[in-house]
Amino acid sequence: MSHESAAGQLPQFLVYRAVAAALEEDLGPAGDITTNAIVPEGGHAKAAIVARAEGWIAGLQFAEAAFKTFDHGADFDVAVADGGGVESGDTIATIEAEARALLTGERVALNFLGHLSGVATLTSSFVRAVKETRARICCTRKTLPGLRTFEKYAVRMGGGVNHRFTLSDAILIKDNHIAAAGGLKAAIESATARAGHTVKIEVEVDNLDQLETALRHPIDAVLLDNMDTATLSRAVKLVDGRVTTEASGGIGLENVREVAETGVDLISIGSLTHSAPALDVALDWS
Amino acid sequence: MSHESAAGQLPQFLVYRAVAAALEEDLGPAGDITTNAIVPEGGHAKAAIVARAEGWIAGLQFAEAAFKTFDHGADFDVAVADGGGVESGDTIATIEAEARALLTGERVALNFLGHLSGVATLTSSFVRAVKETRARICCTRKTLPGLRTFEKYAVRMGGGVNHRFTLSDAILIKDNHIAAAGGLKAAIESATARAGHTVKIEVEVDNLDQLETALRHPIDAVLLDNMDTATLSRAVKLVDGRVTTEASGGIGLENVREVAETGVDLISIGSLTHSAPALDVALDWS
Amino acid sequence: MSHESAAGQLPQFLVYRAVAAALEEDLGPAGDITTNAIVPEGGHAKAAIVARAEGWIAGLQFAEAAFKTFDHGADFDVAVADGGGVESGDTIATIEAEARALLTGERVALNFLGHLSGVATLTSSFVRAVKETRARICCTRKTLPGLRTFEKYAVRMGGGVNHRFTLSDAILIKDNHIAAAGGLKAAIESATARAGHTVKIEVEVDNLDQLETALRHPIDAVLLDNMDTATLSRAVKLVDGRVTTEASGGIGLENVREVAETGVDLISIGSLTHSAPALDVALDWS
Amino acid sequence: MSHESAAGQLPQFLVYRAVAAALEEDLGPAGDITTNAIVPEGGHAKAAIVARAEGWIAGLQFAEAAFKTFDHGADFDVAVADGGGVESGDTIATIEAEARALLTGERVALNFLGHLSGVATLTSSFVRAVKETRARICCTRKTLPGLRTFEKYAVRMGGGVNHRFTLSDAILIKDNHIAAAGGLKAAIESATARAGHTVKIEVEVDNLDQLETALRHPIDAVLLDNMDTATLSRAVKLVDGRVTTEASGGIGLENVREVAETGVDLISIGSLTHSAPALDVALDWS
Amino acid sequence: MSHESAAGQLPQFLVYRAVAAALEEDLGPAGDITTNAIVPEGGHAKAAIVARAEGWIAGLQFAEAAFKTFDHGADFDVAVADGGGVESGDTIATIEAEARALLTGERVALNFLGHLSGVATLTSSFVRAVKETRARICCTRKTLPGLRTFEKYAVRMGGGVNHRFTLSDAILIKDNHIAAAGGLKAAIESATARAGHTVKIEVEVDNLDQLETALRHPIDAVLLDNMDTATLSRAVKLVDGRVTTEASGGIGLENVREVAETGVDLISIGSLTHSAPALDVALDWS
Amino acid sequence: MSHESAAGQLPQFLVYRAVAAALEEDLGPAGDITTNAIVPEGGHAKAAIVARAEGWIAGLQFAEAAFKTFDHGADFDVAVADGGGVESGDTIATIEAEARALLTGERVALNFLGHLSGVATLTSSFVRAVKETRARICCTRKTLPGLRTFEKYAVRMGGGVNHRFTLSDAILIKDNHIAAAGGLKAAIESATARAGHTVKIEVEVDNLDQLETALRHPIDAVLLDNMDTATLSRAVKLVDGRVTTEASGGIGLENVREVAETGVDLISIGSLTHSAPALDVALDWS
Repeated sequence: MSHESAAGQLPQFLVYRAVAAALEEDLGPAGDITTNAIVPEGGHAKAAIVARAEGWIAGLQFAEAAFKTFDHGADFDVAVADGGGVESGDTIATIEAEARALLTGERVALNFLGHLSGVATLTSSFVRAVKETRARICCTRKTLPGLRTFEKYAVRMGGGVNHRFTLSDAILIKDNHIAAAGGLKAAIESATARAGHTVKIEVEVDNLDQLETALRHPIDAVLLDNMDTATLSRAVKLVDGRVTTEASGGIGLENVREVAETGVDLISIGSLTHSAPALDVALDWS
Repeated sequence: MSHESAAGQLPQFLVYRAVAAALEEDLGPAGDITTNAIVPEGGHAKAAIVARAEGWIAGLQFAEAAFKTFDHGADFDVAVADGGGVESGDTIATIEAEARALLTGERVALNFLGHLSGVATLTSSFVRAVKETRARICCTRKTLPGLRTFEKYAVRMGGGVNHRFTLSDAILIKDNHIAAAGGLKAAIESATARAGHTVKIEVEVDNLDQLETALRHPIDAVLLDNMDTATLSRAVKLVDGRVTTEASGGIGLENVREVAETGVDLISIGSLTHSAPALDVALDWS
Repeated sequence: MSHESAAGQLPQFLVYRAVAAALEEDLGPAGDITTNAIVPEGGHAKAAIVARAEGWIAGLQFAEAAFKTFDHGADFDVAVADGGGVESGDTIATIEAEARALLTGERVALNFLGHLSGVATLTSSFVRAVKETRARICCTRKTLPGLRTFEKYAVRMGGGVNHRFTLSDAILIKDNHIAAAGGLKAAIESATARAGHTVKIEVEVDNLDQLETALRHPIDAVLLDNMDTATLSRAVKLVDGRVTTEASGGIGLENVREVAETGVDLISIGSLTHSAPALDVALDWS
Repeated sequence: MSHESAAGQLPQFLVYRAVAAALEEDLGPAGDITTNAIVPEGGHAKAAIVARAEGWIAGLQFAEAAFKTFDHGADFDVAVADGGGVESGDTIATIEAEARALLTGERVALNFLGHLSGVATLTSSFVRAVKETRARICCTRKTLPGLRTFEKYAVRMGGGVNHRFTLSDAILIKDNHIAAAGGLKAAIESATARAGHTVKIEVEVDNLDQLETALRHPIDAVLLDNMDTATLSRAVKLVDGRVTTEASGGIGLENVREVAETGVDLISIGSLTHSAPALDVALDWS
Repeated sequence: MSHESAAGQLPQFLVYRAVAAALEEDLGPAGDITTNAIVPEGGHAKAAIVARAEGWIAGLQFAEAAFKTFDHGADFDVAVADGGGVESGDTIATIEAEARALLTGERVALNFLGHLSGVATLTSSFVRAVKETRARICCTRKTLPGLRTFEKYAVRMGGGVNHRFTLSDAILIKDNHIAAAGGLKAAIESATARAGHTVKIEVEVDNLDQLETALRHPIDAVLLDNMDTATLSRAVKLVDGRVTTEASGGIGLENVREVAETGVDLISIGSLTHSAPALDVALDWS
Repeated sequence: MSHESAAGQLPQFLVYRAVAAALEEDLGPAGDITTNAIVPEGGHAKAAIVARAEGWIAGLQFAEAAFKTFDHGADFDVAVADGGGVESGDTIATIEAEARALLTGERVALNFLGHLSGVATLTSSFVRAVKETRARICCTRKTLPGLRTFEKYAVRMGGGVNHRFTLSDAILIKDNHIAAAGGLKAAIESATARAGHTVKIEVEVDNLDQLETALRHPIDAVLLDNMDTATLSRAVKLVDGRVTTEASGGIGLENVREVAETGVDLISIGSLTHSAPALDVALDWS
């Protein structure tokens, strides 16, 4: 079982650069003094990355890079690729490498893999909860500093879709913009006058009155913020397919299906990236 | 109410550098096209960072830096400092700045503050759960890539203590080191022969036999891994204060007090940093 | 006379970083050995940045940063702001600073200002050539490595609009994508199936048949590539306002008005950024 | 036909670093969403880089690096090396690589190649215009920020020679230095007293009186600035081979030969680097 | 004859990064204009790195990286590995590579190797001077900016041991800390209350009274600063093996043995890293 | 008493960047855990940087930057500026700052100041040894990686002059170039044919025959390598002022005056930068 992963891998040069930075953070100035004191140079070992819980995998490129940075000739064989699901106990990948490379690269490999798989796994829970509705599960800009590109990739590996990567990507008019502009109408008019032709415009609305105002303008999407499901249903009807509808605010696994059944196109959830527990993954020597 | 924060702030030059990188990640190449299209230059506004949940604060330096990067003259007044506790609805800080600076800096400010306060909050839950035992709550190297120094600071702000920052800091002999060295005794002997005089040596043991072996050597601490509380109690007695005792493995809020009551000195918990949900913080305009 | 510049300045922290890199490139390891050998420390001087040709200004933030990097207390007074037009001989800005700062910062200041004003000036020529048509003048990704954000800013200062900043911003299906996908229909269907809701889709077509095929799908824009004006006119009629129309290919100042009069929404021109001659600007001491 | 290219290639580690930065600028955080949505992973394709205009080539290392960054196994065969000339329609290089690598690397490859070949081509026009005179065509420090080393390489590939790379390289006393030093004599005396033994001294003069003053000192070169050709001829006679003569100011293709025929050694032209139109190069799939 | 080098090599990715930075510093923007003007591309040559003085080797990874950065296929054969001793005239390594790579990489290769071998050699002199005492020779944080990790590695290659790499590694209470804390006792109590369990505490004392005070607390080491050997001997007796003893201050080759014979565990010497003369190494062509 | 320092300070933005990197290297990830555990926040202190030996000062900008990075409001008053001489016991600068800033910044401040003053001091010893001869003392490219610009500045502060900063600065033909080119004549001819007009050419010769050959070409300087003083004298006569003469090889304080008295213009000495012992400087609290 596997989520869509056709969008392809992350560029390797970015992965290796991120891994080098993480290794430097983890090694510190003296390096792996435990391994260097105890483990003879040159010996080889085999190990497996194993899931200790059910989940969805994302981030194997990082794990591979962590080991290969220390041992270019390491073998890294993927058993369950990014986007694939695992049960507790499943082998995700096997590695054969210098023993020191295995020991010194382990923590960075698992830190990336555990976090990104955690994001994929939480995303997948939401995706499966809304199965057979039209709603897609979507991330936000509530990501951890320095990790946005990778977390958004993990969301895709969990079956979700991506909202804006940066403030450059699209116009999203929120309550504070409206306040600063002196009203919803003024804000939308400023935005539509200045938006580039490759830029979509989305407007956050809190109630049906605002929604009606917004729909009088040539916008692409509405963010229906913090509405109860009855209001959401009415909003979806009012929109009637003219623009994309996105629900957000206070949505968890306990109520996401109810929200999805209102007929919204997208449900955006900050916790996918800011609060996903790591997937428990470990490196077992064989 | 506040956890110990005497250890002081993070160096400002590191905070500003991290914030600049995060802002660049969030702005993208075209910048904040929504704000720039809608909000006039030069206008000022006031806002408050408000807690939407109970928790402990860490990361206000980052929030301040995010706004001041765009408006050097911004006022940033802290109501609850790092290490302090908040109830839902409490104001954490107030800002007066250019409206554009407030809008464009908001997400990076909140991403740092929410994540680090989340780490502090989860840490604090464990700390309070073991109150009046001798056990201190301790983090691990299971941190998110690029954020280790900051997450370990947040652990301190939540009342916890820090384990190794890097592989350079101390020798920690784990099962795979023992395997590679051909046994516990050989591993400890290699380590003690080569450890610098500023370096402590800790040994991971899985059972009381290993513990007895380890204690025959001049080591500083033992990591009692995945032991049930009965075994932990016997281990603590066996150690009898000669070395620091650290419990780890499978410890959550539901059983941490039970573990603490075995008399161990430290309880280390990877989830403090790899799985802490963000504290819900928001920027409310006034 | 001035082009729209409401979109505001570039973030100062990015400007100062770019200027520091350029200064290091220009200083070399020994620094400004001419000025240091000849000009006494501490003396002050006044100078003016003067246009030696007619044009449009962009990049004054960089010039200011170049001088202030060496003398924080320098006065930099703008006479004609970014987005404004100048005649030959006009003063653009006046500076009062340490004489050494003026001499050492001059070349970097003028290199940024001359290039970006050159981009703005060429853009403005096209913008004025299509005045009172519906066509807007648009840049491309044919920018000079490392300068894209700044060149696209200069295009805006010249009255133009921006196309994609990066490959992330929008889907633009070109001939080679179509070839690789096995046909236009397949390519568009793959794209619409996978595009995020903030992402627009534009399709490049070479003839009216392709255009009709493209218009059967839910796309946002068509890039009418290398069509003669008669074909462009028919394409505009065929589109009939349903999607944005963009003309490109072989368009220069000599024929841009003719293209604009076909009714297209956008005319995109690579030379705005890859071939704009620098505006001649100089630093005159007073 | 080919200009001198014996000076060899640019160091590969600098080329790959510049290309990585440019790719990151072009990819944006989400990567090439068009290619990733449409083009299957793993497929291979062939393409040719073709000249669409007459010119001289510089920058093939960058093009090769752009494709190989995505596909290490790509074949990149050069048909016309750096320093060689092309007619419109000529194939410059052929590439066989993963289809995705070809599509995603194309723009960065062509941006470098087009710009640097543009510099080489403009240089070559000047070089050919002064053929069989003693004058060499020389660049300046009027380069685009971040690209100086590469643009100066392109000047060489076009048959030109390089002036100072940085302010560290040589002493060049200009009018503002003279003003700040209180006169030409004082300026030259300060300079000769402090110049290192590896450093040459060049003095800018505006008229023959200044030239005579300058020639009384042990200098290496004179920059004859903005002189008409009659004055230049007299200056060359006055110098009589004692120092290098360099003409600059207001020199274009229309008058460069006339300047060269005055007998000057060098003609320096800022537009070679700040105003060279890109050479039109394209990637054609086969 | 060779010092212990079991601690293994430096991570290659750090070595290559440091070498790339050093090469860029040495090449300058125009590159190796001497070699490029004189030496034909493509020719190969052989050379040997030869010691011109007696000493101990450290830093061969850097030398290898300097040549391989320019010629990936270069052969680099080590005759005397890091940690080994050489007489004047001994060959340390032989290289076969492109002639240009040999010439252009030489200075950076030798600058690293000469400096690090100089540190190893000076260290080794001290190590041999205290042979058969219990004292180990130890470095300090008095290192050259940017080179600490590498210099501390060189100390190990010379047979020495490392003190703190950074301020993070251990607590070392010095006179100014004591002054700021209001006394030795207060300082130690603050430190022991806040030190993490992986952190050792060392206290600097100037006399036996301070030593007695310090020994009343649970500390790990004492730094016996600027004591004469009589006092040192009494201090060692007073400590009686309870904590590590470290002597520092005014210790040179002329008196180090006398210090060692007092029975101290460690002798720390700033000059190992801040004042080691380079080992004379040269590249001889064959 | 003070050496020439008219060439001015190093650019502050480069100094602050180097200091930030050095501070990060020294702080490590946990920061100054000693100071943070012991010294209360907010308290202020005064201290003096004091010379513990006779010498010449260079590097005060770095010391100032180290303290001001932690406390922007620190007072840093220079008593003996760069280029000035000190006796043991002299105060070099006084600082009033937050006590924590003083303690945490101390080591980086002193590491820069001690090393650069060490270079200045060694240089000054040579400079004074050749007083009243025509010889100037000159450094080489044998510098410590990452510190070249700063070490060459220190050479100037000690009264010396600088040779090439990089391989780009001048052509210096050495024995291996000659070997690769097939002879001295061929090497010089290649060089003179390709050297830019701002580039000087120096040729290394080992004997008077080579010198005579070299002098037949239009070169700027000769490097008289490893000649005894009798040969040097003859070489100086043979040159007879036509080119700059530089002696190198095997020159120390014991024989430098004898070399200088041969009449050479320059004496270049690698040990100025690769083997200068640090000047002993300390921070004394008041």
